[in-house]
Amino acid sequence: MIYINDKSELPIYQQIYEQIKEDIIKGVLVEGDKLNSTRALAKELCVSRNTVENSYYQLSIEGYVESLPGSGFIVKNINEELFLYPNESSDELHKNIVKGNESSLFNDDPLLYKYNFQYGNFDDSTFPYSLWRRLTAEALLSIDTKKINFYNHKQGEPGLRMEIMNYLKIFRGVSCTAEQIVICSGNQHALDLICKIFSKCSPEIAIEEPGYDGSRIVFENNDFEIHPISVKSDGINISELENSSAKIVYITPSHQFPTGIIMPIQNRIHLLHWANQNDGVIIEDDYDSEFRYHSRPIPSLQSIDKNERVIYLGTFSKALSPGLRMSYMILPKWLLSKYNQLFNSYYPTVPWLQQKIISLYMSGGHWERHLRKVRLSYKKKHDTLIQTLTSLMGDKVIIHGNNAGLHIVLEFVNGEKQDWLIETAKAYKIKVYPISQFWYTKENYSNNMILMGFSMLNEEEIIEAVTILKKIWFNQKDTEAVT
Amino acid sequence: MIYINDKSELPIYQQIYEQIKEDIIKGVLVEGDKLNSTRALAKELCVSRNTVENSYYQLSIEGYVESLPGSGFIVKNINEELFLYPNESSDELHKNIVKGNESSLFNDDPLLYKYNFQYGNFDDSTFPYSLWRRLTAEALLSIDTKKINFYNHKQGEPGLRMEIMNYLKIFRGVSCTAEQIVICSGNQHALDLICKIFSKCSPEIAIEEPGYDGSRIVFENNDFEIHPISVKSDGINISELENSSAKIVYITPSHQFPTGIIMPIQNRIHLLHWANQNDGVIIEDDYDSEFRYHSRPIPSLQSIDKNERVIYLGTFSKALSPGLRMSYMILPKWLLSKYNQLFNSYYPTVPWLQQKIISLYMSGGHWERHLRKVRLSYKKKHDTLIQTLTSLMGDKVIIHGNNAGLHIVLEFVNGEKQDWLIETAKAYKIKVYPISQFWYTKENYSNNMILMGFSMLNEEEIIEAVTILKKIWFNQKDTEAVT
Repeated sequence: MIYINDKSELPIYQQIYEQIKEDIIKGVLVEGDKLNSTRALAKELCVSRNTVENSYYQLSIEGYVESLPGSGFIVKNINEELFLYPNESSDELHKNIVKGNESSLFNDDPLLYKYNFQYGNFDDSTFPYSLWRRLTAEALLSIDTKKINFYNHKQGEPGLRMEIMNYLKIFRGVSCTAEQIVICSGNQHALDLICKIFSKCSPEIAIEEPGYDGSRIVFENNDFEIHPISVKSDGINISELENSSAKIVYITPSHQFPTGIIMPIQNRIHLLHWANQNDGVIIEDDYDSEFRYHSRPIPSLQSIDKNERVIYLGTFSKALSPGLRMSYMILPKWLLSKYNQLFNSYYPTVPWLQQKIISLYMSGGHWERHLRKVRLSYKKKHDTLIQTLTSLMGDKVIIHGNNAGLHIVLEFVNGEKQDWLIETAKAYKIKVYPISQFWYTKENYSNNMILMGFSMLNEEEIIEAVTILKKIWFNQKDTEAVT
Repeated sequence: MIYINDKSELPIYQQIYEQIKEDIIKGVLVEGDKLNSTRALAKELCVSRNTVENSYYQLSIEGYVESLPGSGFIVKNINEELFLYPNESSDELHKNIVKGNESSLFNDDPLLYKYNFQYGNFDDSTFPYSLWRRLTAEALLSIDTKKINFYNHKQGEPGLRMEIMNYLKIFRGVSCTAEQIVICSGNQHALDLICKIFSKCSPEIAIEEPGYDGSRIVFENNDFEIHPISVKSDGINISELENSSAKIVYITPSHQFPTGIIMPIQNRIHLLHWANQNDGVIIEDDYDSEFRYHSRPIPSLQSIDKNERVIYLGTFSKALSPGLRMSYMILPKWLLSKYNQLFNSYYPTVPWLQQKIISLYMSGGHWERHLRKVRLSYKKKHDTLIQTLTSLMGDKVIIHGNNAGLHIVLEFVNGEKQDWLIETAKAYKIKVYPISQFWYTKENYSNNMILMGFSMLNEEEIIEAVTILKKIWFNQKDTEAVT
């Protein structure tokens, strides 16, 4: 018996469809049963025949019934036992079900601390909000705005690539054509593409020890064999690299992450020589090259490479905003055919509109002005942090990686332990960060360092926080008075 | 001799730095050479001593010189032979250099044709331009707009995931929590994540033959063994699937791509049964489920799966815009721990601002209104195309996959060849598309079909184009008069 609810939001044809479907699933109607004729059911329910026909048509295209000439609509066998009583006994995987926890979605707010020495995020003062609104409008009115409804070029918008090419040429000495540039959704995406390019011929990678774990995990997830190479005071240990079987090395030569070491020119030449001799490839991650406070930026390795040995990675995450999820990679020309062969049917990953907005942002000169502005702002924060640490903590700490970037590493000469330092700070609503995850071989880490980013705090906050840290870390009897 | 050019845009300290660096690279200055004292050089060049110190400092941090107490600045050995004369002889890779062709960047304009039956792109009438401007402003003024400067949750914005969850529950019967949803940069990105989840345990995948090549290439690039399974008139051949060793199958059950076949309920149950029996996983790509013109949408496979066998994929590319590069995947709960283990250190790939805008778009009811509007628009185009093809080409063609989606497949009963059909149309500025690439095993393709998308053309254009196609394909003696 089919029941029509006039108050339901469901259309009548759908109510009929649902009830007949339910009867078939439950076995009330079984294979071979004939549905009422559309005329009869329409009359019975006081609805139009067309409505009933719609219901039957839907049941028919989904396979619950079939229309047989001369016989009307006949119920088909749907094997309802399988439908109602799924076989769970053979199900090994099912036992591992993780209980969902909706609240965990909302639980990673970096603003829970009063002083957050987070690396990577920025306060909202640095983002050009009103300009973004204006450029959005401009992009949506531009001559090529119809591209918002297209699948566009897999390597990214040509106009944006030209802007990046020009920027890199002037500011990083990078020599390339726009054809060599691939716009990516962050450096992890770029590294994933690189892994696919090399996975067949040489799935081994040398990485810096310590080094950036967010890159390492991409190599691991692509089943690359990891060769950790120690970082000395002048950068990656090239003798160790020469003794490894890896032909690809991932490095951060301009500001090694996390130690902040600059690779000197001798080692750069040595590294390029290694690549030439071994058919090697160097992945240069130039993640924060825009920020050097007491000298000019260090020229990129790519700029002194004469043999196309370097894949260059850059990002907008540090200099503009990590929420953009946009970076770029420069492939040597000889890799383009391999890249195109693998990714010919791929689509870009960065939204067209954002590419267009950033293209306008760069061509309008806003990008360079922004860099000058934030470099000055970060320099003040940097100088304040270094001066305060130096004057308050003196010879109890060694500051690594200063004069550049957006973070420092603080080493404790008396061996205070990382986790204790973090926990102690946390009790006073100060968040400083572990560094242990950057070692591939955990035993290589001396466990007496922390990471401090300085982009989220203003100068007053930096002084306040370091003052508290000094007391709680080195002068525990005074801590009562701190808060 | 250092020369200062007062008219140069380069700062003076940089001019000094560049010239000394050049001298070191060229070997004019060699290891052990002492630079002039900063005082002497400043006097010689009539610049401030501070300027010269800046130059020397930069040379020093880059490793060209070193400052020795009491001796001033001494040139270091940079192994300049390697620098100037890179060893190219051992370079196998170098021989494969592809010549860059900048113009190829601009050469893929889909607007070169008068009538373009392209599948996937849309004309700009469907994009909500002015609303997008308004929502952008709203997002940039919203309470969580500071997130634009953060590295946010790897699975995407919680608010957006809640919106998608609610939409899928109502419109696709999909049952999930927001915790199971991962926002992706298109379905290729989603499939790439899925490949990494299963690469260790079961790198074999069953796909539809014919099926979507843009997905297949992702499996191939992840080194999955491909098992093509033929598509019958009721969907993928499950007996063939049962006989293959693949435990994972990728399918498009609601509107098989490209054939348009709907998998009936019997086969859906059968397929779920296969998954239960074999610890199998079904990847359901529900790419164009929003568009069904003469019946309700077909319920998703995920909605009748009681054993968490289905990974569900959906996209905004067809229903809103392919330029957004945004899709989503619903993982079964038991896969979440594996997902989190692999991707714990990953960042999201979709820009925060776009996620926020679409979240506002959905919560404001615009999304449902948009779907109703474009569904009506595409229905008119679809009906016009089907009616015109039927009336003009009659029994010379079979139309596959109509009544849904944004494309049809046209099969030519007299065996006209795909490439001839395309070339003939091209001569009259009509673009129709090949379908051969969707077969993994090319020999399985009968070579007498083409793909026609109908989203880019209006009804008049469809009628005009089909009228021309009829003449040039079936009535060649009349073609003179067509143009």
